[in-house]
Amino acid sequence: METQYYSKGIPLRNIQVTDRFFKRCMDTVRKEVIPYQWSALNDEVEGAPPSFCMRNFRIAAAAEKRRREEGREAVPVFPADEFQPLPEEGGPLEDRFYGFVFQDTDFSKWIEAVGYSLAQHPDKELEQLADRAIDVVCAAQCEDGYLDTYYSINDLSKRFTNLKDFHELYCFGHLTEGAIAYYEGTGKDKLLKAARRFADYIASVFGPEEGKCKGYPGHEIAEMALGKLYEVTGEEKYLDLARFFIDERGKRPYYFDWEHLIKRAEEKEDYHYYQAHRPVREQTGAVGHAVRAVYLYTGMAQVAKYTGDESLKKACERLWESIEREKMYITGGIGATPEGEAFSYPFHLPNDRMYNETCASIGLVFFARRMLEMSPEARYADVMERALYNGIPSGMSLDGKSFFYVNPMEAEPEGCRLDPQRRHVALPRQKWFGCACCPPNLSRMMSSVAQYAYSENESTLFMHLYCGGILKKQCGDVEAQLEVKSEYPWKDKVEVCVEAESPVRFTFAIRIPGWCRDFSVRINGEQSEGIERKGYWYLERVWQKGDRVEISLPMEPVLYQADARVREDIGKAVLMRGPLVYCVEEADNGANLDLLEINAKGTFRLREEKGELGDIVTISGEGRRIKPRPMEKLYEPYREVSYEPVLIRYIPYYTWCNRGVGEMKTYLRCYES
Amino acid sequence: METQYYSKGIPLRNIQVTDRFFKRCMDTVRKEVIPYQWSALNDEVEGAPPSFCMRNFRIAAAAEKRRREEGREAVPVFPADEFQPLPEEGGPLEDRFYGFVFQDTDFSKWIEAVGYSLAQHPDKELEQLADRAIDVVCAAQCEDGYLDTYYSINDLSKRFTNLKDFHELYCFGHLTEGAIAYYEGTGKDKLLKAARRFADYIASVFGPEEGKCKGYPGHEIAEMALGKLYEVTGEEKYLDLARFFIDERGKRPYYFDWEHLIKRAEEKEDYHYYQAHRPVREQTGAVGHAVRAVYLYTGMAQVAKYTGDESLKKACERLWESIEREKMYITGGIGATPEGEAFSYPFHLPNDRMYNETCASIGLVFFARRMLEMSPEARYADVMERALYNGIPSGMSLDGKSFFYVNPMEAEPEGCRLDPQRRHVALPRQKWFGCACCPPNLSRMMSSVAQYAYSENESTLFMHLYCGGILKKQCGDVEAQLEVKSEYPWKDKVEVCVEAESPVRFTFAIRIPGWCRDFSVRINGEQSEGIERKGYWYLERVWQKGDRVEISLPMEPVLYQADARVREDIGKAVLMRGPLVYCVEEADNGANLDLLEINAKGTFRLREEKGELGDIVTISGEGRRIKPRPMEKLYEPYREVSYEPVLIRYIPYYTWCNRGVGEMKTYLRCYES
Repeated sequence: METQYYSKGIPLRNIQVTDRFFKRCMDTVRKEVIPYQWSALNDEVEGAPPSFCMRNFRIAAAAEKRRREEGREAVPVFPADEFQPLPEEGGPLEDRFYGFVFQDTDFSKWIEAVGYSLAQHPDKELEQLADRAIDVVCAAQCEDGYLDTYYSINDLSKRFTNLKDFHELYCFGHLTEGAIAYYEGTGKDKLLKAARRFADYIASVFGPEEGKCKGYPGHEIAEMALGKLYEVTGEEKYLDLARFFIDERGKRPYYFDWEHLIKRAEEKEDYHYYQAHRPVREQTGAVGHAVRAVYLYTGMAQVAKYTGDESLKKACERLWESIEREKMYITGGIGATPEGEAFSYPFHLPNDRMYNETCASIGLVFFARRMLEMSPEARYADVMERALYNGIPSGMSLDGKSFFYVNPMEAEPEGCRLDPQRRHVALPRQKWFGCACCPPNLSRMMSSVAQYAYSENESTLFMHLYCGGILKKQCGDVEAQLEVKSEYPWKDKVEVCVEAESPVRFTFAIRIPGWCRDFSVRINGEQSEGIERKGYWYLERVWQKGDRVEISLPMEPVLYQADARVREDIGKAVLMRGPLVYCVEEADNGANLDLLEINAKGTFRLREEKGELGDIVTISGEGRRIKPRPMEKLYEPYREVSYEPVLIRYIPYYTWCNRGVGEMKTYLRCYES
Repeated sequence: METQYYSKGIPLRNIQVTDRFFKRCMDTVRKEVIPYQWSALNDEVEGAPPSFCMRNFRIAAAAEKRRREEGREAVPVFPADEFQPLPEEGGPLEDRFYGFVFQDTDFSKWIEAVGYSLAQHPDKELEQLADRAIDVVCAAQCEDGYLDTYYSINDLSKRFTNLKDFHELYCFGHLTEGAIAYYEGTGKDKLLKAARRFADYIASVFGPEEGKCKGYPGHEIAEMALGKLYEVTGEEKYLDLARFFIDERGKRPYYFDWEHLIKRAEEKEDYHYYQAHRPVREQTGAVGHAVRAVYLYTGMAQVAKYTGDESLKKACERLWESIEREKMYITGGIGATPEGEAFSYPFHLPNDRMYNETCASIGLVFFARRMLEMSPEARYADVMERALYNGIPSGMSLDGKSFFYVNPMEAEPEGCRLDPQRRHVALPRQKWFGCACCPPNLSRMMSSVAQYAYSENESTLFMHLYCGGILKKQCGDVEAQLEVKSEYPWKDKVEVCVEAESPVRFTFAIRIPGWCRDFSVRINGEQSEGIERKGYWYLERVWQKGDRVEISLPMEPVLYQADARVREDIGKAVLMRGPLVYCVEEADNGANLDLLEINAKGTFRLREEKGELGDIVTISGEGRRIKPRPMEKLYEPYREVSYEPVLIRYIPYYTWCNRGVGEMKTYLRCYES
């Protein structure tokens, strides 16, 4: 492998994000989502189903206390076999575990967002709140390091007996990610130490050594969390454990079969859903539950990078290719079928009944980041950008108060309400979910976006996204500072100003966006001399204080079409400008958007607008609308179609469904005239 | 009501069908389906899951024998609460009930087809076989008249305790329909007597009188069967019972709630599926399981006719309007959603994921027939024709050996195999089904088609369909004979020759098909003088031997479009010629039919063909095919579309999927040039 191109994230505290696009999201997360999330995990949101999360930690802490003081037998043992035990309606709450088996992760996802947020925006009060929450969580940890309230409260003797479905290792993964974020954001390591103790305990139970358990997570994330833990601590054993989980996955006989004592051939479960149908190096297409899949692939990429495992890297590339070439929406959405919230077969990308979970797009960004850190190629960053500017922010309303699980490419309210095959496409966004994965995932993604925008190694600073901010880069003894001034994705100029006490040599590698047809870079007003490699523009030089890099990224509105094997999209086109996918809404274009057609040869006009959708650029395009003929019967002989000319008003996809419930479409039929 | 327009079916033995289109179907049913069905219900089809039907009757007969000889206690009682008890795999068969709770109807549907077939085509051997089967069935009847093997074998004390789901009254309905058909076909009344005894028993249990049960069938059909039983026997009590079931349906509190002891409001079941959500006279739209719905509506129409109940007639008209105007495919298919095999919301008519069960189209023909017998309007016959020439025959392969449950408007094999939302669209047709409703339903429909084609009253003979045959009509003392010579739907001339010993006066009412733009009738070469009323051409005259009526029905290929509220079909058109819907298949037009577009202003050419699809007329139309551009990425900037001109070859929809598995489409995008 070409390790000279390896890079890693810049510590969050070394970047101050000033970017207009992401700052808005981050502020919303900080002001709205994080406090709301805290109320939610303390069961204080009126009208929302309780999470029971902090309550479970408290009960587990009490149980642990009793365990230490009185011995095992004193612990009340409930049967541990319900996926979501709930209190009897109207009845009193007992001292037992309630909620989904993975409810602990509500806290972990919250603390992760808090950590990132504090790195960008210190807040004493929030930090104190978080510290107290961490105390509660840590009190629930068992003496041996185990920390999962479902089994702690119910029956510790059953832990690790249902890896396939009961999400213990998933809880561990999220806990670890949260702990690392909080450590990075605040420098405090109490939770990180707890996560390490849990990791150490897991490493004592699982592993290639004789007598150890050969299982692996049903819902992946531990792999990538262990990769991060290795990065933070430098402890090889965490990397080894990640590799172990990855290597065991999909081996025959199936661990999950064994675990569930499935013996008869006809009862064999199909493990595609879990990406455990065959060893990961033999997997050629992205399959199964989309979130799980990209979490796994992310961990694989980390392990491949740190171990130099070429066959694992190849597997990552194949799986990436499968997603990018055959299974991804233009918004960076993945998971084309609601059945199993999963990838569908190649080129099956329906627009109105897919799943496109917000979390899956987030996971795709995780995967892209790790691929980029291994091999900086614009294709990875292009996908990251698609998701970050489209499929992910669409998951949250502009006010940060409601969320989509499912991000459709088109939607009409009647169909979403009445057609059972589209009922999972809930309109409008929901306030919160019983299984609350998307809102906190969005929080952590947006709060840590700088880690995706930039990475570095000793010689090079990579700019993957045009995310405005102020970065510090250590160059030997000298700390350089780069200020990236960007109004991306609205304006096509990005400026980078260098500050350094003395001249510093490093390479500045700038991604050339795949969508950009006329990319250019000037340094101090002169055409830059750089080298292009795999979609990055490498500028190696000695930088002086005051050096100015001007990047020009002309952004014309461009209609895109899909590969003709995407049957849904034949004869249709979708509008983009720069990284933004655009859509049309009923609010601007009237009802029955299916009557609209866009002139592929027409001109498009931009308009800067400041209003209820924020400070955005809208686009209008020349189009026509079929005049529906009044018909007496349901079917009548064809008559010449008459059209009325219309200006079709497009808004950025991520801003849809912020003006009440109405129709939305991305792909429109097109004509040429 | 205008009772002078009432009519009733012509006794089957008074019509000899010679029609080329239907004769083919009838012969296939007689030669292939009826024998196959017999093997199936005797568990003699290799590779098919056993029906257990005749076996259950034998076991029930033995149980009944023991009951009579030894008293109740001797009967082995199994728990009666499984919907489909099956023997243990590989284990021995016990003397108990196996199969679906409604498995008795396998026999009833078979005997019905046999009865109709014998009426048209006497067959001593088949008749003897049927007589023996009837002996077995009748031996299973209880002393009190009850006849349902599920409860007879399991536990008689539980009968009529689960009307909602366990289909007893459905079994009764089918038994009665079968018994009547066999009586009409052969004159033998053993089974009819058994059905009457069962009906009498039911009438003793259910009814408006105090102390009687106020339930009604979960799966409707008893209503229409009782209507027929009234027609055959003239017994008012059967009509009363039908009316009782219809009147009780949907009353609050719900009988089904009571039956299942559902008390708490939050547990309320939604009875739309059963058309029992509200009283039938208050139902405005067709909802729920499509087969059940049209069976109910058929019974309602019969009761409305015979009781002169205007409010019931109005309800029938409203429900009809709902189907015809908002919920029916152009093929006569109904049931736009697989969830509940049900009607969807108005104008929601997806082409590739609907249900369109063959049985539902058959039920729609039942409904149309009864509406016609009450008020002869071409709209009813138009729908009947749609179904009979398209959505029903498509349910059976041309060789009669395999069947569709689901009749899609378009299909592509990969999607049907891999997309969970289309997996119910099974390609190719299946040999038989565990729940074998469609094949026998198709058998009885096709074998009795003459009853739908014609009806009569004292003064008038109605010709609803252009079905060729020789009819006898009694006019006072004189028996007239009409020979209808038709090569419909292939040729546009139909000739009717009258034979009668002496002149006879009657009205000949000929339907003017809704699709026909240039209908004309000549009598003995002269323009006819008739009166048009609601799409029928009434010719009242004194007919002489040798009179010749020539009907001209010019059949041009015509593209149809759907109401613009059918979003799926905007910008698309479907080809028809006369009553036939046409489709395109991969076998003729290559793969990815989604690339095809039809020129709405182009010309169409007819071609008579005799080949593997039978003796048919194919049509070719001017079209173009998008040339898919090779793309490196999944999404690329739009480029001008290039087309290649193609002749699009259309075949009749009902002949699709008879040349292996491939893509099929009915609606194509269209352009005008």
